[in-house]
Amino acid sequence: MSKRKQIKYNLMIPGPTPIPTRVLSAMNHDMIGHRGPLFSAVMKDVMEKLKWAFDTKNDIFIYPSSGTGGMEVAVVNTLSPGDKVIVLNIGNFGSRFVKICKAYGVDVNDVKFERGKSADCETLRAELKKGAVKAVLFQQNETSTGVINDVEALSKVVREIQKDALIIVDAVSGMMAAPLKTDEWDLDIVVAGSQKAFMVPPGVSAVSISQRAWKAHEASKCSKHYWDFSLMKEQAPKGHTYTTPPESLIFGMQEGLKMLQEEGKENVFARHKANRDLVRAAARGLGLRLLADDSCASPAVTAIFPPEGIDGEEIRTLMREDFNVEVAPGQSELKGKVFRIGHLGYVDSLDIIGAFAALEVLFKRLGAKTNFGAGVKAAMELL
Amino acid sequence: MSKRKQIKYNLMIPGPTPIPTRVLSAMNHDMIGHRGPLFSAVMKDVMEKLKWAFDTKNDIFIYPSSGTGGMEVAVVNTLSPGDKVIVLNIGNFGSRFVKICKAYGVDVNDVKFERGKSADCETLRAELKKGAVKAVLFQQNETSTGVINDVEALSKVVREIQKDALIIVDAVSGMMAAPLKTDEWDLDIVVAGSQKAFMVPPGVSAVSISQRAWKAHEASKCSKHYWDFSLMKEQAPKGHTYTTPPESLIFGMQEGLKMLQEEGKENVFARHKANRDLVRAAARGLGLRLLADDSCASPAVTAIFPPEGIDGEEIRTLMREDFNVEVAPGQSELKGKVFRIGHLGYVDSLDIIGAFAALEVLFKRLGAKTNFGAGVKAAMELL
Repeated sequence: MSKRKQIKYNLMIPGPTPIPTRVLSAMNHDMIGHRGPLFSAVMKDVMEKLKWAFDTKNDIFIYPSSGTGGMEVAVVNTLSPGDKVIVLNIGNFGSRFVKICKAYGVDVNDVKFERGKSADCETLRAELKKGAVKAVLFQQNETSTGVINDVEALSKVVREIQKDALIIVDAVSGMMAAPLKTDEWDLDIVVAGSQKAFMVPPGVSAVSISQRAWKAHEASKCSKHYWDFSLMKEQAPKGHTYTTPPESLIFGMQEGLKMLQEEGKENVFARHKANRDLVRAAARGLGLRLLADDSCASPAVTAIFPPEGIDGEEIRTLMREDFNVEVAPGQSELKGKVFRIGHLGYVDSLDIIGAFAALEVLFKRLGAKTNFGAGVKAAMELL
Repeated sequence: MSKRKQIKYNLMIPGPTPIPTRVLSAMNHDMIGHRGPLFSAVMKDVMEKLKWAFDTKNDIFIYPSSGTGGMEVAVVNTLSPGDKVIVLNIGNFGSRFVKICKAYGVDVNDVKFERGKSADCETLRAELKKGAVKAVLFQQNETSTGVINDVEALSKVVREIQKDALIIVDAVSGMMAAPLKTDEWDLDIVVAGSQKAFMVPPGVSAVSISQRAWKAHEASKCSKHYWDFSLMKEQAPKGHTYTTPPESLIFGMQEGLKMLQEEGKENVFARHKANRDLVRAAARGLGLRLLADDSCASPAVTAIFPPEGIDGEEIRTLMREDFNVEVAPGQSELKGKVFRIGHLGYVDSLDIIGAFAALEVLFKRLGAKTNFGAGVKAAMELL
């Protein structure tokens, strides 16, 4: 068999995710005055739709930035140098919260969990009992390990032990891939990003702010300007932003959110869950080991150990070169040890089966001890 | 005559500017892995083209942010709380530099100039002689007043009196609208934004960094993470960014810069100069007063005083409602007192003449004492 390369590029990474033609078409839009009524109407519509996605009545602000910018927004607007906080660190993005806090002089208790595990309530309870903290920060979904936290349960523990501590949730890769109820679960800051389940290119972060977070903002002494809630607050009621908004991406957000509303929240969540189950069944059918337990497996991304003797980076390179399929590498301590398959956003069952077909053929070519055909078959049984 | 509204929207503001179809088409692109070779090649090409635009061999970093984010990048990466700096404040964006510096505890000497004037070398010389400063910050082009500074002359004064002071230039609205020679003029940080003469939607800032600026960065104590040069430096040689890049806008930057290279730098500058002259001739022909003197008139945007008895905001509203032409308001102390016409980026002579035709008719309807027909005629004589 000749190695004919696929002409279609298959993007299977946990963000940026594939963009539907409808969203691309919406972004293919002339620029308009960002301080005029046309753009205000778009922004107000996007805000309403974001409140639907976040399940909140809280203010939501939009920043021209990546998801990491949104995480920084949360920290610098509510905390002060010297404040004690807990970060529930289950992966690379937990470590990023730690880095951001430290960069601003926040006193972090970096509570590290084994990679592949979620943050457990008992550990959090014990840490909270050691003394008052200003905030608890964690991920809804940890992109680097493919682990989802039980945000509701963790938040209940915080409220039970320290009822006024801020709960700051990075939902960049989890938002709209798994349920998140900002108001019902009493979450103070929630951060989302355009390039994940919203099906829009990177460049916009969105941040929700509870009354408790607004109060914390008043006392916050971290240096800030670009991220400052106060500067945004003056503009938001007019449907404006403090600085120039990334218009094309906002048009994309409007269409991506519209598509999600048409599909319906429960269907969106069910789709992501089905994608997760398909990937896990296929990987196990092939005989591969998964990093995350079933109990905390992410509906957005799955980290998989390569077959014995094969490096995760090699898989990434060969999948790209031989099949035009882009998978994601392991990050930090997991580099080379795992590879990751993103299955959030505009990704469907048959995309996943195609990617696994490529993976199976690749392992066969490499002489790996995997059960050729069994991965795809296991996934097909779930269709 | 019935007031038939134009079906075409005519965007005449100083950013975002109209986007050429070629740039929109380039942005209409699937997402690709941002840590893979395909995207690296795009980023490296954009970097080469940006170095051409900035006229520099310095490092240039790209951030997902508005232009204001780029201004903050410059401040937090090179300065420390307590550092003494001079801001040459000729308008709203000068005041923004002052606000950013103050937000980070930098000790600012806010040297304010009358609105409509550029920063003059004698004042700068006198201020520099009062004592050592860490940096001098100013705009190449002040968007709020339509005034361009003589960057070369100001920089010479800095080097003459305090040879090691950092020169930080906000070139967001000036870059590619007027000449700027980063290396020849020895500028330490230069900031640009996608949504101006680059003809790309908002959401990307680009920042060049001299050796002097890198040295200052090592000593800088401003809190930072998202903007941190050190985090970017690790990724840049690979054509990567620290956080996820705004891919669609980067594809747009590649095409916008390609178009500018095809047009040729001198032609691009000549086009902007001609646009400026056209706007000024038309406004004067109409009998209107201009905010900026000819000696410092911006090639990017022109601030115009309305005819007696008419408010600048009213002009903005009626131009939009009656003619579908979007002009810009006065900012801060100039709100209502002037209106502004943007003529940078993808804007041509005939766009300007069309906008002035609308303006003339509007003034006639309002019963203003203007010379009906004389504005457009004066502009036509320059074609």
